[in-house]
Amino acid sequence: MPMAASGKSAEARGQRPPGEPARVFHGGDLAAARALFPGAPEPWLDLSTGINPHAYPVGAIAPSAFSRLPAAADVAALEQGAAAAYGAARPAAVVSAPGTQALIQLLPRLIPARQVAVLGFSYQEHAACWRAAGATVRVVDHIGDLTAADINVAVIVNPNNPDGRVVPVADLLAVAAQLAARERTLIVDEAFMDVVRPSASLVPHLPDAGAIVLRSFGKAYGLAGLRLGFAVAAPAQSGRLRAMMGPWAVSGPAIAIGARALADDAWLEATRLRLDAAARCLDGVLREAGLELVGGTSLYRLAASREAAGWFQRLGRAGILVRPFPDRPHWLRFGLPGSPDAWARLCHAFGVTPRAPAPVA
Amino acid sequence: MPMAASGKSAEARGQRPPGEPARVFHGGDLAAARALFPGAPEPWLDLSTGINPHAYPVGAIAPSAFSRLPAAADVAALEQGAAAAYGAARPAAVVSAPGTQALIQLLPRLIPARQVAVLGFSYQEHAACWRAAGATVRVVDHIGDLTAADINVAVIVNPNNPDGRVVPVADLLAVAAQLAARERTLIVDEAFMDVVRPSASLVPHLPDAGAIVLRSFGKAYGLAGLRLGFAVAAPAQSGRLRAMMGPWAVSGPAIAIGARALADDAWLEATRLRLDAAARCLDGVLREAGLELVGGTSLYRLAASREAAGWFQRLGRAGILVRPFPDRPHWLRFGLPGSPDAWARLCHAFGVTPRAPAPVA
Repeated sequence: MPMAASGKSAEARGQRPPGEPARVFHGGDLAAARALFPGAPEPWLDLSTGINPHAYPVGAIAPSAFSRLPAAADVAALEQGAAAAYGAARPAAVVSAPGTQALIQLLPRLIPARQVAVLGFSYQEHAACWRAAGATVRVVDHIGDLTAADINVAVIVNPNNPDGRVVPVADLLAVAAQLAARERTLIVDEAFMDVVRPSASLVPHLPDAGAIVLRSFGKAYGLAGLRLGFAVAAPAQSGRLRAMMGPWAVSGPAIAIGARALADDAWLEATRLRLDAAARCLDGVLREAGLELVGGTSLYRLAASREAAGWFQRLGRAGILVRPFPDRPHWLRFGLPGSPDAWARLCHAFGVTPRAPAPVA
Repeated sequence: MPMAASGKSAEARGQRPPGEPARVFHGGDLAAARALFPGAPEPWLDLSTGINPHAYPVGAIAPSAFSRLPAAADVAALEQGAAAAYGAARPAAVVSAPGTQALIQLLPRLIPARQVAVLGFSYQEHAACWRAAGATVRVVDHIGDLTAADINVAVIVNPNNPDGRVVPVADLLAVAAQLAARERTLIVDEAFMDVVRPSASLVPHLPDAGAIVLRSFGKAYGLAGLRLGFAVAAPAQSGRLRAMMGPWAVSGPAIAIGARALADDAWLEATRLRLDAAARCLDGVLREAGLELVGGTSLYRLAASREAAGWFQRLGRAGILVRPFPDRPHWLRFGLPGSPDAWARLCHAFGVTPRAPAPVA
């Protein structure tokens, strides 16, 4: 895949600062895309991430959100709002963080595990962070392999990124119970749960399930730049995560916008319908172009093709960035176009019938 | 001190989640102030922090700063701007973080030290974070004690919070050299350097000095809610800090506003003059009220009085929150009033001649 080659060559050219471990390849890197396709038309259409293109309206932000240190009472209100939105009930405790990634970085300190199993193929930061902390990580194909005798920590991304696989709650509870019986821990990353299948969340079963659940704010609400995410866990674990981050971990704008958005049930319900329609429309485009649908969620679709590398090139030359997978060369992941123009560009680049989801009233 | 008693009682009442270590007392907690002085007039005048009351203008923020994942190129531009503003030259490397506090939390992981010395009396989060990581912390009165044979890490807040003491660069270099000769590390927290005495910064001497310097954005620029801070160090250390934080550590709004503000030399120079004038005016108020000036910077003034507890109460009843120090019961720290009304309230509460710094043209 070209983007993978580009990522590797940056490291090979010594642009990575010394002492810094290799990074995981992510979507959203338009600078790399521009370097790879210097003649592509601007602006780029970035379909390489799974972020809602219809962002929650930021609206007016009080100047004090920028100027004052975030107040403990405002953080508590945000976390109560998140608990209500996600269905967390006491004694399960919600802790806010500057993005889910910040929590993924901390989990190996929360749980000093030597043997970690990740249900794959999945988001690679989990394996990377545990490995960076010195753990041995097995990426396993079957949920039964998560409870092998030597495993200290098991990780499931649910729904999975990139293929959208959803592990039923009953299966999650069974895995969590097996692990908890041996004082092991299940971590469930529900980054894409909000708009996808809220009933599949493990959060309402905490802390009894003995698991730790991560929730992302930025993906469903289209505000990835705000940096806001949450962990839901037993109070002792949430408290230790909070202590590791220290005071004022989340910014004032994130607290203000997050609290408002998480209380807006009507927006979320309308967004679910809107994204479902867009995902179905995108499936039609991909199928007409001859790609095979592998899976996905309503925030991204995963398609397979023997011509994946060629499509990546052709779309790139048209200024459309999609997500390749160096370890799955036949796969491409597509985020949702967010405007009639974006739909037109994608359909044109694929050479398929122009289409777009019905506009929102 | 009443606020200290309030902080302790919250913990004693069991409001602190289980598993969570005791917190350091900080300024800025208006909820606690309201609980302590229920009859005080609103809005509260918060002089309990050292944050510039004249914030850098936030201005318009591009929607993409909220919606997109922060781009590596934008982070690099922010860090180049910080390097220029702080006088860092290659190979010293600047790494951005969601607030200096986030870096203070990480330093014990960067340098696994058993024996830490902090030049006191100072900002208490340094000692607290090293202790939480299992280190033995000595708070020492003399800079010579920082280089005792058993010390692995020495910490100097410069200018110091709360008394404003500035350790000359030559002395910092001598301490750093002594420590480096034994593969020990000096950490200098320059949180209040920007508007105070830029020539006293150790940054231009990095990485040769072998030290790590922390810089805060939010205090001088009056944007503490944005969460933005920096470490300057040798490339290997900065790279390890960056890897510990992972991708997208700093929010899009912080990147956009920070890059703009750090390039605005004219604003910073005008701000230095404005804050100097305000600090001199505040000194006049405190002296007329009979308090003894202990020190400070142009972002806060430290005063002593046998009647400190009484003044804290009297100001509190007037809706003015200042910073007490449980371990220094005769001290009070005062931030700068930020408006003519704020100056009038402070002067009235102290019963002194009304005054305010000359308005800015």
